[in-house]
Amino acid sequence: MCEFCRIIDREASARIVYESENVIAFLDIEPIHEGHVLIVPKVHEASIDKIPEVMLLDVIQTAQKVVNALRELYGTDGYSIMQNGGRFCDFGHAHFHVFPRYENDGFGFIYPEGEKECSDAVAEKLRKKLMENK
Amino acid sequence: MCEFCRIIDREASARIVYESENVIAFLDIEPIHEGHVLIVPKVHEASIDKIPEVMLLDVIQTAQKVVNALRELYGTDGYSIMQNGGRFCDFGHAHFHVFPRYENDGFGFIYPEGEKECSDAVAEKLRKKLMENK
Repeated sequence: MCEFCRIIDREASARIVYESENVIAFLDIEPIHEGHVLIVPKVHEASIDKIPEVMLLDVIQTAQKVVNALRELYGTDGYSIMQNGGRFCDFGHAHFHVFPRYENDGFGFIYPEGEKECSDAVAEKLRKKLMENK
Repeated sequence: MCEFCRIIDREASARIVYESENVIAFLDIEPIHEGHVLIVPKVHEASIDKIPEVMLLDVIQTAQKVVNALRELYGTDGYSIMQNGGRFCDFGHAHFHVFPRYENDGFGFIYPEGEKECSDAVAEKLRKKLMENK
């Protein structure tokens, strides 16, 4: 069983800060900033398109609560939310990072080299695919 | 009016790929990878706790569709979703980045220096605050 499933089943310990029928939230053991939380839907899936909407709604409601609590507790300048899906998802179990942000806090992104295409052709291709899958 | 509000009102142009009552989605003009989409709720707010749930549900449903379309179009290894809120939100208008990911694609994160606290005390403080605000 994956580490997050084990936490949900209380077979592994975690610093749980919130739980509902659909999600569990606990501290990240390697926080980007103090108060860094992982919100984890109670289903073992690596991609959001495989997760029931009702669970994702609960994820977002929990994220709203966490963002609000972090602001009140730490006087944050903002926050970041991230979810890395598919092969980039640790344990193959989706988890949403929510962490406080501060001006010049040293957190940032490393961008791939080279120009990437943003064109009408790309938009058309994606628009068509989204229509097909509707 | 902010750039994203102007796109919603069709006063500025964008490569729109999807639109519903609550959200609009278009290509990021500086894509991390081809197919990089911004999903923008149709309300000018910088933090998710200020955005109506119904809009955020639509954001997440749209993200599900985009993730699925990117997989089918590009054979991605995964995806990342990010939202930077508060002062880290460009134009002060929330937007959710969804972009394809590939093994060794050069995208990454820069972490702040120094150890950050992850302790029972931090969890207790956050849990209390989340209970208070329930």
